[in-house]
Amino acid sequence: MSTLTSTTTECCVPAVRDSLDVGAAEDIARGYKALGDPTRLRLLALVASGEGGEACVCDLTEPVGLSQATVSHHLKILVEAGLLTRERRGTWSYYTIQHPRFDELGRQLLTSAMPA
Amino acid sequence: MSTLTSTTTECCVPAVRDSLDVGAAEDIARGYKALGDPTRLRLLALVASGEGGEACVCDLTEPVGLSQATVSHHLKILVEAGLLTRERRGTWSYYTIQHPRFDELGRQLLTSAMPA
Repeated sequence: MSTLTSTTTECCVPAVRDSLDVGAAEDIARGYKALGDPTRLRLLALVASGEGGEACVCDLTEPVGLSQATVSHHLKILVEAGLLTRERRGTWSYYTIQHPRFDELGRQLLTSAMPA
Repeated sequence: MSTLTSTTTECCVPAVRDSLDVGAAEDIARGYKALGDPTRLRLLALVASGEGGEACVCDLTEPVGLSQATVSHHLKILVEAGLLTRERRGTWSYYTIQHPRFDELGRQLLTSAMPA
């Protein structure tokens, strides 16, 4: 964690500390960016509510009303952001929620809003 | 909240419910999208750690190493997403964290990852 202190100017709060370093901010931002799309949020909700906390891509297209190619594209972004894992079984890919990543992003959200 | 049930196919989880309706998903996604940028996360951390939980735009440029115009642009996105409020005092704008919006997004993050 960096602790940067701004210069004091006549107008301002005397010291503003930066409690989030650049590398951490980039990793966390990647997670939020993946969440920043309504279709992806609905896909996550669908996967989370699937039996055993997983869902097949073939079971996700109809609820969101999009093609399998589009749904697979969104799922790929969620996997790359660490929010889902993908497992191939025969013809189909199955997706599972990665709870530790959600916890991490949730904690960061609360930390961002709290005084350091 | 909509409760959409997908058709059962031979490969898949029998029933996947959609616990997030379209309107709610769009509002929440707007919040996450605003958070999906490392500079904006750092600005939020800076505002949160400012004296009295607020900060002047003039005190935020140096820690993130960007021009005031760029910082103001990022702050505008955060205000539009409901994460900050802006108050004009004399020459300067002061920004304050909107805790209820952070709580809402944090709760949604946990809900997305939990079975409905």
